[in-house]
Amino acid sequence: MLEQLGINAKKVAGILTTVTTEQKNNALIEISNALLLRADEIIKANNIDIENGKMAGLNAGLIDRLMLDRDRIEGIADACRQVAELDDPCGRVLETVVRPNGLVIKKVSCPMGVIGIIYEARPNVTADAASLCLKSGNAVILRGGKEAIESNKAIAKIMRDAIEKVGIPADAIQLVEDTSRQSSTELMRMKKYLDCLIPRGSKNLIQAVVENSTVPVIETGSGNCHIYVDRDADIDMASEIIFNAKTQRISVCNACESLVIHSDIIDRALPKIKARLDEKNVIIKGDERARAVCPDLEIADEVDFATEYLDYIISVKTVDSLDEAIEHINKNSTGHSEAIITDNEDNAKIFMQRIDSSSVYHNASTRFTDGGEFGLGAEIGISTQKLHARGPMGLRELTTTKYLIFGDGQVR
Amino acid sequence: MLEQLGINAKKVAGILTTVTTEQKNNALIEISNALLLRADEIIKANNIDIENGKMAGLNAGLIDRLMLDRDRIEGIADACRQVAELDDPCGRVLETVVRPNGLVIKKVSCPMGVIGIIYEARPNVTADAASLCLKSGNAVILRGGKEAIESNKAIAKIMRDAIEKVGIPADAIQLVEDTSRQSSTELMRMKKYLDCLIPRGSKNLIQAVVENSTVPVIETGSGNCHIYVDRDADIDMASEIIFNAKTQRISVCNACESLVIHSDIIDRALPKIKARLDEKNVIIKGDERARAVCPDLEIADEVDFATEYLDYIISVKTVDSLDEAIEHINKNSTGHSEAIITDNEDNAKIFMQRIDSSSVYHNASTRFTDGGEFGLGAEIGISTQKLHARGPMGLRELTTTKYLIFGDGQVR
Repeated sequence: MLEQLGINAKKVAGILTTVTTEQKNNALIEISNALLLRADEIIKANNIDIENGKMAGLNAGLIDRLMLDRDRIEGIADACRQVAELDDPCGRVLETVVRPNGLVIKKVSCPMGVIGIIYEARPNVTADAASLCLKSGNAVILRGGKEAIESNKAIAKIMRDAIEKVGIPADAIQLVEDTSRQSSTELMRMKKYLDCLIPRGSKNLIQAVVENSTVPVIETGSGNCHIYVDRDADIDMASEIIFNAKTQRISVCNACESLVIHSDIIDRALPKIKARLDEKNVIIKGDERARAVCPDLEIADEVDFATEYLDYIISVKTVDSLDEAIEHINKNSTGHSEAIITDNEDNAKIFMQRIDSSSVYHNASTRFTDGGEFGLGAEIGISTQKLHARGPMGLRELTTTKYLIFGDGQVR
Repeated sequence: MLEQLGINAKKVAGILTTVTTEQKNNALIEISNALLLRADEIIKANNIDIENGKMAGLNAGLIDRLMLDRDRIEGIADACRQVAELDDPCGRVLETVVRPNGLVIKKVSCPMGVIGIIYEARPNVTADAASLCLKSGNAVILRGGKEAIESNKAIAKIMRDAIEKVGIPADAIQLVEDTSRQSSTELMRMKKYLDCLIPRGSKNLIQAVVENSTVPVIETGSGNCHIYVDRDADIDMASEIIFNAKTQRISVCNACESLVIHSDIIDRALPKIKARLDEKNVIIKGDERARAVCPDLEIADEVDFATEYLDYIISVKTVDSLDEAIEHINKNSTGHSEAIITDNEDNAKIFMQRIDSSSVYHNASTRFTDGGEFGLGAEIGISTQKLHARGPMGLRELTTTKYLIFGDGQVR
């Protein structure tokens, strides 16, 4: 069943290599307008999903994620319009080399071809992912969760109609309407048609895709993010950064989950940090030495140090050296975002060099790991793997490169 | 069993992030010297592999690939020395952004960490791959074929001794001594320790790795390479380029396997091309229209058009338009290297834009797709996938990036 979608996508991918930036932007603006004009259709479809969700016993949080009202649809439409304003990531000449034999070799950015997105119950991903793929010249096959299927169908139909209106084949955006587990597995094995597969959602979903996909995957992962308070830290700055990184938004992957504090400073630092975190009733779980300083901390064990709480909870590990801090963090982190708070430039340099994470901060909150905050303009996810893309991924990360070689008859 | 190798590699990877370029280069020169000084050890071990190979009935070609004599060992030692002379791919600042809030964000290149290489019976890969991984700051786990195990053990031991002598832990280079199928499968699932897995060898090997690995793979693939002779081609140039691309070395992935010729020019072009290929007794298999021009061609069918012959055989497809040529090629190629021969710049531009391959040539032989010919200095393989690296991969392709973010207390 899915094979036909693959065939369609592959065909359109060929056409998309020659579509101009202007055409792509027109399509995105047309999508944005159409989503607003046909908002009622989306809301009607979304109501069915909400009803079905309630009957299936989804909790309030999931129902909220699923829900689309006029405000949220406006947000989605705005996002599409913003993608139109971003630079075209294709056609950049990244390198030019002239070889002794006269060959001119250019490395240029170009669309990957066909991208698959597997996601869960957030219908906004349907429009977000499709608009980023379109702008980067890729055909997309979307496989969203069954909870949002009616909303996704409505959004996909509106987008397909819109792009067709400006001369781009509708099949540049295709939705898998079969939401069985089997369709998901089938998509993961469609190496013949898909150039890349990006899972977006829970740890379990991502794990399943990594385990089963033969299509190259970009893993967007969880964040067990650490902040290390060095011996030479400014304690006030540390308290403010930790307060922000832990409490500004607890449910996100760049929130801080664990503190590592140098033993020479913990007596002075931890009470101040605790006082700040107490304002938001954060539960602090500490090792023995941390609890010697603040006896009312809960006990942290090895499981805590490996846990992404996504809650008002944080763990504290005491270390005797920068080396010990780095080892502890590299052992427990998920490679997402870590920070050092210190006035010691040498220590900052060593920390930033040796910490094995996508984004390493000196004297700033881990909460900045985000496509928008990094100035990418839009984000398809945050990669925690090392191949292809690492950290926040924008439009450029949805492109590949090719070598164009210009000769006048050269042979080897 | 392999887990311990993973633990060792991960530990050394942390140390390698701070090793200087000079240290790495010293280690490579030390390896090069040691391989020459201890060549007898290698030859002795190699003799055992050769004996075993003969007893196991390996054919002459395989025995030749396996064989190491003093000349070949000198070649291997030279290659290590050349890697020392290449630029360090780590520590390049690829982008610097200053955000409105004062954060300075730098994207820098850095080692991936731990790279696994799965390969077959060529013992030179042991030294080549290890030296490229070392120069790019990565720990490597090598899993070569059982046919070369004694040679690999000798080479690995010499390299490990050499790097230890200059202060780099021996475990930066580890060889899997268990050559059972199970060890290979285990390596493919060591996601906890490996950042990347590169298979080098036959189509079957690569296929097995792609199918079974949970570690991100860089697929280095086969080449069903096409040359399209456009209506506006210089026929003499076409003949020379085709002769070179087909016959200069038949067993390589960038050799030409299939011609696509415009029907308006085939009457004049094919006889000339055939006359040139006849010099090397190349078997030409043509479609009906090609055979109408040269009746003594063999018959080409759809299977031919999808076949990488790696032999003195070539297929010919006749087309009526540039569009048809592009469609035929994108359908049958393996995404490796394709060329257009034409004096028409517009046609060349369209061809280069729409052909979905790593390397697309205008008026030059496909045989140039090679790290050395592209000026990369060394090559770990040629990627036919679109994630991370595409086309010839040198040292840079063995690195990843990380974001370093410098603040003075910024919170979100």
